This record gives sequence, structure tokens and C-alpha cells, in this order.
Amino acid sequence: MHITDRLIEAIEAQNNPTVAGLDTRLEYIPEAFAKTFAPDGVWRFANAAEAILAYNLKLLEALRGLVPAVKVQVAYYEMYGVEGMRAFAETLRAAREMGFVTMADVKRNDIGATAQAYAMAYMGKTPMVEESAFSADYVTVNPYLGSDGIKPFLALCGEHGIFVLVKTSNPSSGELQDVAFGDGQTICERVGQLVSAWGSDIIGSHGYSAVGAVVGATYPEHGAALRKALPHTFFLVPGYGAQGATAAQLAGCFDSQGRGAIVNASRSLLLAWQKQNTQDFAQAAAQEALAMRTALREALKA
Amino acid sequence: MHITDRLIEAIEAQNNPTVAGLDTRLEYIPEAFAKTFAPDGVWRFANAAEAILAYNLKLLEALRGLVPAVKVQVAYYEMYGVEGMRAFAETLRAAREMGFVTMADVKRNDIGATAQAYAMAYMGKTPMVEESAFSADYVTVNPYLGSDGIKPFLALCGEHGIFVLVKTSNPSSGELQDVAFGDGQTICERVGQLVSAWGSDIIGSHGYSAVGAVVGATYPEHGAALRKALPHTFFLVPGYGAQGATAAQLAGCFDSQGRGAIVNASRSLLLAWQKQNTQDFAQAAAQEALAMRTALREALKA
Repeated sequence: MHITDRLIEAIEAQNNPTVAGLDTRLEYIPEAFAKTFAPDGVWRFANAAEAILAYNLKLLEALRGLVPAVKVQVAYYEMYGVEGMRAFAETLRAAREMGFVTMADVKRNDIGATAQAYAMAYMGKTPMVEESAFSADYVTVNPYLGSDGIKPFLALCGEHGIFVLVKTSNPSSGELQDVAFGDGQTICERVGQLVSAWGSDIIGSHGYSAVGAVVGATYPEHGAALRKALPHTFFLVPGYGAQGATAAQLAGCFDSQGRGAIVNASRSLLLAWQKQNTQDFAQAAAQEALAMRTALREALKA
Repeated sequence: MHITDRLIEAIEAQNNPTVAGLDTRLEYIPEAFAKTFAPDGVWRFANAAEAILAYNLKLLEALRGLVPAVKVQVAYYEMYGVEGMRAFAETLRAAREMGFVTMADVKRNDIGATAQAYAMAYMGKTPMVEESAFSADYVTVNPYLGSDGIKPFLALCGEHGIFVLVKTSNPSSGELQDVAFGDGQTICERVGQLVSAWGSDIIGSHGYSAVGAVVGATYPEHGAALRKALPHTFFLVPGYGAQGATAAQLAGCFDSQGRGAIVNASRSLLLAWQKQNTQDFAQAAAQEALAMRTALREALKA
């Protein structure tokens, strides 16, 4: 099944365009839960990764049926070494088995031959071994190297998809992305056009391509302009919550039917237990996810 | 010790501005050597990673004293899953212990908080665990997100360094990197300026910063222009050999004293055994490295 059709249908089944970002780090885990993995208080990569995986599994159980998709940010797993990468793989596997649409947020990029290795690692099978290393439904990629760094991923798009960085949510994203070329077009507009062209042959039955774009919620005018310019490009929208964007600010990333985007929340879910002053992090995340769903629904009605 | 001072002195001690790129994949390993790891002919991630690590160790032994630095391209290890990442970590560790300057070619990039996690993974220590996940002397990074995605790496520069993608070696690199802004400057020139500014406080006693640039050998005019514009920025130069660039073409990346750049060779070393029609891949790589050293020395004299 076309991955973006699957994503759109999962969003509509739950009436919730939210992706839960599992940017889990040891510091985010309540002490009572964490200390079962380090009874002597000593953290090594192995027990840290174990605690993080266990935390993720609890969170996935709590978010099942409430949030259609899960995004796993690999940086927070690479930080815990080889054992962290095992927790990353196991988190993706568990999320897939529980029916979530999965996204590996890896922002990979390289020249063609090397991009091919990344594409196989996250979307395909490794030659000779014929197994999947870190399989995810979607992978994020960085466009700085141009088309031939993207093509190996495109070749595997259809049942899998990619989100290409177009306009990122961070404060300095405009340093390069907003600068105008001689013809007045900005880099992020130019990249948006490329993304649309790369995905033009892989459009699903709901009108959206398997090649999507990352568009930060923290820049509402960019979101609305890109939405208009790229009618077949699905948006992954980071920046909600901890990064400062509100539901109203990101409504422009959606189309007139309330489709076309999925909004990521990471820290606001992972740290909901602190805000709610409870040790039950899974229940707290579910409550926060419910509040976010309500906020998004209201913003999309308006 | 300042990492770029260390790199420059290692290059001069061996009179060889070459970095050996260990982009190893199972298909590159001669059958006779590979089959000791899969006597039944069945490849899984575990024995594939074991074979790749063993191959790398033999290569490192052969290149010791001949090549001052080693670059490990993580894509080819991620492809073999968690076990591949273990081979990646072990290869970096072995190279460091053998005295090579090490480079993790990971092209990581993200918003500040996440870039911080990557920086700790490759250049620092992971909080609470207080160990290094995948420590390397240099890390490659992608600038598309602007300054706040780079700052966490800068904070760890000095004994460690980074190479920021400026002008990449692939055919489509110009799609974004060569487009001119309204003021006539191209993106790669603008990024070059940023790189120079990011590194201006971390210049070593030989005049080069710990913040370097990736400049592809396949674009000689860009290399020469960037060399002139960025007198304190050390260049990591890919594209020699298998990607088509010759020693003469990349001479412009060096300064008038023959310093300021290091040239990567990956496939030409890894597959030298095929060209030389031998199973002794380590000896073949050493011979190829010698030929490359001679070619570079002659190009730099001219």
C-alpha cells in the first residue's frame, strides 16, 4: 500500500494528525522507573539503552489508538552507542508491530553511492544479507547534495516514503533557507520545487506523494506559502510545544480539507509527567496527546 | 593538542596528504578472506560485520606509517545494523590506537538540541553514562540548518574538529550549492564564509582552524577559489580516484606551501586488489596508497 495513503488513513481513523517523537534520553525518565535498571546508580550504555527502550514501550502502549504515527530521532540513540542503536531498532520494530506508521528521523545525506547504502539501511534490504537493518515507513533526508543524493531513496519510495528538509523549525534555519536567489526565489522554495518534482510520479490515491517535506511549525508564513505551492507534498511539521509553536500557527500547513500534514510532538509528550507532577509518564503522555489532539482539531476547524 | 595541528604534523611526518576512506562493504572483500567468516555461505549482519572489521584491521596494519588519517563512512556500517555499528566503533577505536587521525564521516545535522546529542556521540561524552559512544578526531556535518545546528559541535572543537559540507563532489552538487544569491555570491561561497567565521576562534599554531570544509576534488575551479577565500580553513577533499578526479585537478585545494588539504581515497584503495588481480587486498591497498602519494607529491610540486 502507498505509504502516504496509509498515513492519511491512519490519521483519519484516529482523527489526529499527530506523530509522537520518541527523542528519549535518560534524563527524561522518572527516577522511580529508571532506577530499576540501575539499582546501584551506575549507568552504562547497556542499562541506559535498556531503560530507554522500556520507557518507549510503555509510551507506545499508552499512545496506541490515540496517535497514528511515531517518529524516532536517531541522535538520541547514537548517543548511547551500539546499545543505543539496538534500542532504536527495537523501538521501531515494536511501533511497527503495534500498528503505528513509523518514521526514522535520521536526516541522512551523501553522494549517490553512499546515499544508496543509507536507503538500503532504512527502507530496503542489505545486499548479500537480504535483511533490513533499521526499517521504517518514512525516513527524513537532507537535500544539500542535490538530486543524486536523493535518487537512491526515491527508488524505494512507494510502500516507503521520505520527508526532505525544506524549512526547518530552528531559529537559524533562515541563514541559508530564506536567502533569495537572483530570481527572487528563496532556497527553501527552490528545494520545495525539487521535492515536488522528485515525488511527482509517486502520488497516492489521496493526492499526496510518498516524497514529503519537513516544514517547521515555528514559521507559519512559510508553512502557508509552501502548502499553496506544493499541493501534492505531505508535510511533517516539527516545532509544536517545546519549540514554541501553537496549533493555530501551524494550521496553514494543512489543506482546505484539513489534510496534508502531520505535527510532531516530542518533549511535550516525553516530559508531560513533569508538567503534570506525576511519576506515571505513560498516562501523562497520553493525557498530553489528548490535549494536543483537541487543540489541533480546533485549530483546523477555525 | 589542537586537532588540525596534529593532522598537519601527521601529514608532514609521512609527507602524504591522504586519508584512507574505509567505506567497506561485504562485496569489496575477496572471497577467500570473506568465506572464513561464512563457511556455509550464509551471511547475516553479525558475520558480515565481523568480516568487515577484520578486513579493516588488515588494511589499517598495511597503511600504518604510509597514510596519516582514516575516514570511516558510517552509511556502510549502518547498512549492517547494530552489528555494523559495532564494527564502525571498533574500526575507529583500532585506528586511533594505531595512531591514525580519525574521521567519522557521518554528515550529521539537526536543530540545536538534537545536534547537541550528535556532538556528544561523536566528539564528547554522553551525560550520566560519562563515556564516548563513537569518538572520532573529526566529524563531518551538513550546514543546511544554519548556525544553531553547528554550535553544539563548535563547543567541542579544539582537540576535536569538524568538516562542514561546502562543495560536495557529486554530479548534482551544483543544484543548490552553485546557485547565486541576489548579490552574486553562490550558496557554497556563503557557506564557506560561515565556516570560516565559525572557526575563527579555534585556529591552531599552523594557521588552520579546527573547523574545516569538505570541498570536492571533482570541481577544481571551486577548490582553487575557496582556497583563496578561506585561508584558515582546512579542506577535506573527496572525489579522487573512483569518482574521477586526478591529483593535478585538486592541487588548487592546497596553499602555496602544499598545506591546507587532505585528500580522501576510498574505493581506489579498498578495491586495489581487483585492479592488481591479487587476493592480497592489504598489500594491494598499500601499493595503491604509495602510487597516490607519489601522484599527490608530484602534483603539489608542479
